[in-house]
Amino acid sequence: MSRVNSRLENDHALATAGLLTDLRRTAPLVQCITNAVVTNFTANALLAVGASPAMVDIPGEAELFAPIASGLLINLGTPHAEQRVAMLEAARAASASGTPWVLDPVAIGALSVRTALAHDLAALRPTVIRGNPSEILALAGTGTGGRGVDSIDAAEAALAAGHALARDFGAIVAISGAVDLVTDGRTDVRITNGTPLLTRVTGGGCALGAVIAAFASLGPDRLSATVAACAVYTIAAEQAALVARGPGSFAVAFLDELAAVTVDDVRERAVIA
Amino acid sequence: MSRVNSRLENDHALATAGLLTDLRRTAPLVQCITNAVVTNFTANALLAVGASPAMVDIPGEAELFAPIASGLLINLGTPHAEQRVAMLEAARAASASGTPWVLDPVAIGALSVRTALAHDLAALRPTVIRGNPSEILALAGTGTGGRGVDSIDAAEAALAAGHALARDFGAIVAISGAVDLVTDGRTDVRITNGTPLLTRVTGGGCALGAVIAAFASLGPDRLSATVAACAVYTIAAEQAALVARGPGSFAVAFLDELAAVTVDDVRERAVIA
Amino acid sequence: MSRVNSRLENDHALATAGLLTDLRRTAPLVQCITNAVVTNFTANALLAVGASPAMVDIPGEAELFAPIASGLLINLGTPHAEQRVAMLEAARAASASGTPWVLDPVAIGALSVRTALAHDLAALRPTVIRGNPSEILALAGTGTGGRGVDSIDAAEAALAAGHALARDFGAIVAISGAVDLVTDGRTDVRITNGTPLLTRVTGGGCALGAVIAAFASLGPDRLSATVAACAVYTIAAEQAALVARGPGSFAVAFLDELAAVTVDDVRERAVIA
Repeated sequence: MSRVNSRLENDHALATAGLLTDLRRTAPLVQCITNAVVTNFTANALLAVGASPAMVDIPGEAELFAPIASGLLINLGTPHAEQRVAMLEAARAASASGTPWVLDPVAIGALSVRTALAHDLAALRPTVIRGNPSEILALAGTGTGGRGVDSIDAAEAALAAGHALARDFGAIVAISGAVDLVTDGRTDVRITNGTPLLTRVTGGGCALGAVIAAFASLGPDRLSATVAACAVYTIAAEQAALVARGPGSFAVAFLDELAAVTVDDVRERAVIA
Repeated sequence: MSRVNSRLENDHALATAGLLTDLRRTAPLVQCITNAVVTNFTANALLAVGASPAMVDIPGEAELFAPIASGLLINLGTPHAEQRVAMLEAARAASASGTPWVLDPVAIGALSVRTALAHDLAALRPTVIRGNPSEILALAGTGTGGRGVDSIDAAEAALAAGHALARDFGAIVAISGAVDLVTDGRTDVRITNGTPLLTRVTGGGCALGAVIAAFASLGPDRLSATVAACAVYTIAAEQAALVARGPGSFAVAFLDELAAVTVDDVRERAVIA
Repeated sequence: MSRVNSRLENDHALATAGLLTDLRRTAPLVQCITNAVVTNFTANALLAVGASPAMVDIPGEAELFAPIASGLLINLGTPHAEQRVAMLEAARAASASGTPWVLDPVAIGALSVRTALAHDLAALRPTVIRGNPSEILALAGTGTGGRGVDSIDAAEAALAAGHALARDFGAIVAISGAVDLVTDGRTDVRITNGTPLLTRVTGGGCALGAVIAAFASLGPDRLSATVAACAVYTIAAEQAALVARGPGSFAVAFLDELAAVTVDDVRERAVIA
């Protein structure tokens, strides 16, 4: 976790910088089927980083749009009945058409409806699964879920569960925490950037899922794409924390910094191992 | 309403300061079934003050979660069909399991669906009823409701209606206005802190309902808890108004101040009679 | 597009200034049936400019409220089944009772459910139709829609389509872009104020629809009202851009400026031809 970058660490930072340039050039169109609490923040985070959001989340339209979209986020935060139908049809259409998609199994474990849905969606083979440790443990069947969206387990404690999910579903797994862990089941990458203020803003993790979907659309290396999304996101958060007076001004500054973060910021600040 | 605190006033301020300390130590988990306009602001207000939000609002999950939650908010702002089912099952589960819950009967009166729902929910005996004067009058059957969420009556004009509701349903009643009134039907408490800017931000009252649910989870004295929530909330608002350039920056500063407000701020600034 | 105002241009700026004064005096009550992404920003924009929002969007209530409301916005961004029913009943009730209403056909074209709904709503004769160029082209049947809510056509390219819609439905048509175009099918008005930052905030166009509904409630000249709404909105945006550090702080400053913009600002800064 030292800031003395090894050659491998430099490779990750350079790859992240290249992907950020690609994202801003191509402005990927990211379909979001997400929860009512964070739709606004998620759309603004996508716009800020340079992507284009499209909250197409009703049955009949969700499956039409998924093959057109560059990437897709499915977030289970407030899974009302229509959204559940839209999620399943969009996931099927994305998998069939090759649109990369991210599953964020928010608060699964004790809550019955979303837990069953998360398992149905995982079986449709998401490109990336992103969650807090308790959610990753619950999806892998080795934990009981957290208290709402809060994580009660450290990311490292969910690493074995992440490996199992990666192998079982052929997915990249991103486990959010003070250190973000990204794994494909064989290679584990740790991103040490970030700030605790991200946990004081609702949607701090949910919007990351959308940004991962944007990066995952840029090419076939989804491990690097997920690492890049986490790194760009947490570097922007670090920079926002420098000017924030509290959680309100942090959320505002974070959107400013997501728009402002440069390739040089990434190369200089990324702490990826 | 003088700032020369009597012994009683000091008691309220001291009790509020103690409850704020308790809230930050225990981080109560507050389930919110609330309207689409204010979910984000409400969750951020809870996080800022030191509580933990969980927007669990679908049938089948709402009733599972209410007994686990520390407190529950039911807000009728945009009561879609699934939410109405979730509200009723959560209210029943909360009352059965002893989870304190807050009913916010947004804009009832002329609007038929929510007015009927508010009466059904009140019959399930909420711990606290929070509303603008016109909503309190409408719930008590002595007014016709306001224009949307705006209040057209002064808080004092709704005091008799508040007394009636407190007696009929065994609830604490909080009436929001330039002076906030809190009553258990016998003792009336007035909190004079605040700023008109709170009425220029959507959800200014709705998020207070969630903060009341957080404080109500801290112990059996729900009158003091409701007073404490109103005082902390409006003191943070006063402090935010000092730095705000308008309603946009006020909302941001308000979240910063909810996170920053100290026990000393409460003791020095609370104007409670 | 010169800033040397002709007499006609001065007439528009003066009319806008007068309407802004009227709006703040009367605080029109604007019913919004709008998408989940922008409800909060839309309500805050209405409050900031001096109007009063009411997000009444469920069947049974929407039709009761539309005749009481000063104006109505119907925005198709996330048209869930209940909202679709509420939209149709509110539009019928508004047209029957004379409440002016705005149709914002978000992202129609390729998306089947909302495209059919937009045609059904247009047949109910909205007072104003507001959209991006691709949406105006799609509603007129001469384009295929944009990529999500982004416009891929310049406003001028949609002018003929705007004329057709204005004639066919008896509506004012507002086409948003770097230059906003407003037409009644005979007179075309161009508003050159604004900033590209408006396109970096989700709901930048959606909230304008609500502000148009507020201005349209002020009197029978809906062409002038729509021009006034676009001018006040984009002048506030220009002023916000002067202090913004990025899209996050722009959104905050924009709400501040909507509340602060004066009649003198309008007279001095409006560029209307």
